[in-house]
Amino acid sequence: MDIAKKAKEASYKIALSSTTVKNDALTYMAQALEDMKDDIISANQEDVSNARKNGLKEALIERLTLTEQRISGMIEGFLTLVDLPDPVGGGTIIKRPNGLTLLKERVPLGVIGIIYESRPNVTSDAAGLCIKSGNAVILRGGSEAINSNKAIVKALCSGLKRSGLPESCIQLIEDTDRERIQELFKMRDYVDVIIPRGGGALIKNVVENSKIPVIETGEGNCHIYVDEFADLPMAEKILINAKTSRPSVCNAAEKLLVHEKIAKDFLPDALLKLQKLGVEIRGCERTRKIYPNAIPIKDEDWPMEYLDFIIGVKVVDSIDEAIEHINRFGTRHSEAIVTKDYERANKFLAGVDAACVYVNASTRFTDGGEFGMGAEIGISTQKLHARGPMGLEELTTTKYLILGNGQIRE
Amino acid sequence: MDIAKKAKEASYKIALSSTTVKNDALTYMAQALEDMKDDIISANQEDVSNARKNGLKEALIERLTLTEQRISGMIEGFLTLVDLPDPVGGGTIIKRPNGLTLLKERVPLGVIGIIYESRPNVTSDAAGLCIKSGNAVILRGGSEAINSNKAIVKALCSGLKRSGLPESCIQLIEDTDRERIQELFKMRDYVDVIIPRGGGALIKNVVENSKIPVIETGEGNCHIYVDEFADLPMAEKILINAKTSRPSVCNAAEKLLVHEKIAKDFLPDALLKLQKLGVEIRGCERTRKIYPNAIPIKDEDWPMEYLDFIIGVKVVDSIDEAIEHINRFGTRHSEAIVTKDYERANKFLAGVDAACVYVNASTRFTDGGEFGMGAEIGISTQKLHARGPMGLEELTTTKYLILGNGQIRE
Repeated sequence: MDIAKKAKEASYKIALSSTTVKNDALTYMAQALEDMKDDIISANQEDVSNARKNGLKEALIERLTLTEQRISGMIEGFLTLVDLPDPVGGGTIIKRPNGLTLLKERVPLGVIGIIYESRPNVTSDAAGLCIKSGNAVILRGGSEAINSNKAIVKALCSGLKRSGLPESCIQLIEDTDRERIQELFKMRDYVDVIIPRGGGALIKNVVENSKIPVIETGEGNCHIYVDEFADLPMAEKILINAKTSRPSVCNAAEKLLVHEKIAKDFLPDALLKLQKLGVEIRGCERTRKIYPNAIPIKDEDWPMEYLDFIIGVKVVDSIDEAIEHINRFGTRHSEAIVTKDYERANKFLAGVDAACVYVNASTRFTDGGEFGMGAEIGISTQKLHARGPMGLEELTTTKYLILGNGQIRE
Repeated sequence: MDIAKKAKEASYKIALSSTTVKNDALTYMAQALEDMKDDIISANQEDVSNARKNGLKEALIERLTLTEQRISGMIEGFLTLVDLPDPVGGGTIIKRPNGLTLLKERVPLGVIGIIYESRPNVTSDAAGLCIKSGNAVILRGGSEAINSNKAIVKALCSGLKRSGLPESCIQLIEDTDRERIQELFKMRDYVDVIIPRGGGALIKNVVENSKIPVIETGEGNCHIYVDEFADLPMAEKILINAKTSRPSVCNAAEKLLVHEKIAKDFLPDALLKLQKLGVEIRGCERTRKIYPNAIPIKDEDWPMEYLDFIIGVKVVDSIDEAIEHINRFGTRHSEAIVTKDYERANKFLAGVDAACVYVNASTRFTDGGEFGMGAEIGISTQKLHARGPMGLEELTTTKYLILGNGQIRE
């Protein structure tokens, strides 16, 4: 795979580029997007019309569609990146008794492969983050967005060229055949990390087949646990926000766990409100005794990420049962407790095994922007390297530079 | 695989244990090793006698053998860990404008699988590091050390029991059949990371088959580049140290690159000294013109880790050729330049893609102890999560604890 080799070569060049050069490149890329906006939109229209012919769901077509406003959003993304601090070059210094000086410096990862689905703005967002952090990137979007992605990458590369950086810092795999991706997965000599962005099936395919290290992102079977000692109006507000403000994203709540002592007080009103907002309620037996409108939930629901106006509801006997349930069925993304009790809050924070654990707040805050990172490449649900929202620093690694004057080891 | 599930359960308990409890456990484990020393040594003698029957190489038998002194070393290891700071529980605090407080806290990884070869002291070293960092560990040593490993784990578990921590914090896979390890590789729900420690073949098997994230450690095809502007006596001293002080370890030099302008001045004396120390010299054509005693080197030598009294030698035209050669054939472990020139030094530091890049010092310093970490689980040659020597902190991850008072996202 020639692309991977070229990316490696380009990565050595961009790794040594100054912040000024990288910022210039980002500015030129933003300008190129503005200049080539019409080409991008007409390429996108081709994709959208193909998608309609192929009977793609309306929700997916909505994600695929680029408007002037979305392109402005992409351009703004680049300008935001210019203003963010360069994650590369900082570090720590360690002096050793033998006179050696160890500089543990932040350096780019090298070559990052990003595998994603239908949203073409991921193409520009991901490319921008990789350039700012000094990495070369190989992009592999969905086949339904191929024309949009080609047009976007063409614009970005013209921006790169103007800055003097190699155009092969950003490359798109244009052949969206499944075999090509298997080839990429073997390129351990040239690609340093693969980041899948998308649904569970996409992530599973990458994890099971890639020989290159993977950072898993974004599968979210998130729970809201309403404790015996919850402020019930607050719990209702948090539940409704976490479930309904944007159900298609990974930080939306998928399950509600309720302590049995307040289930009767809490469920009827809260579930009715959710139902009025269009949410389908799937409940355990005890839930259905309190709220008969709930559909019986199945065992296979508990680990499921709906990404839709559906919620699974379970009445639990204790906070311990809630924690156990979450650790068993959760995806280690974002989990919340609503409680006024200090010890319960601490128990939940310590006991739940997830990237983000909330007390008295909506899970919807798990996001690079909301966490103050300025930009986000995805939300890691694994434990190695990065956990939770990943910004620019998570696209770097470290390198020890060791300065001596003839030291040898005894 | 029942072991994995038990390890996960134990991991939740040890993760919540205080530093005091973990330190007590380490102290009791050290005492148990002392108390059960005779049992361990006689189990080891069984392994050694089996190894002799099976015709194992003397070098491997040497690695396998436990003496009183080696057991004292294991005990000392535990006591050193007691004195090291707990890597768990620190972190950073971020206040957001909406009133949310984000605590980014250091927490244990969870369950760590360690796969290693013949040295039984890895069993106790690795277990100690995992306990101090609040992790449960699944150990899988080589079949030739199975009796020693069983005896060591028995002692360690009796120490754990005395401290009140679950014994399943440390478990040994006693069935050393190859199939069992493939089973472990699939336990993504229970095991958080696999760390292979051993030769290239072991690491390759783990990387290619594990569905669990892997931290690669310890393959080292390390180079010493002697620049045109080197202090030649210093270069010779560093070369001899890096090659001969302990050739069987991963931070030993395997290749020598020499700038053509000083090759004639440097090679004859330096290579003769190496040869007198028992090192076999394999040289490129230009090397052999200068030093005819060198054996012709083959193409397949360049990427090879000898772990033996052998060195490959190449004369290069420039520092750029040296850097390119290292980036092409190196294992991203430890690389050194010897030079008096400021710009050459900086070029090498920036251009070489490796965990540790040295100026004017021996590659043999790449080691947790030498870097001031106090203890080491291995040397990572990958870029994700940890790079270079890995101490206690590298056995942790982070977790966001988010404290709110009813915040919802607009």
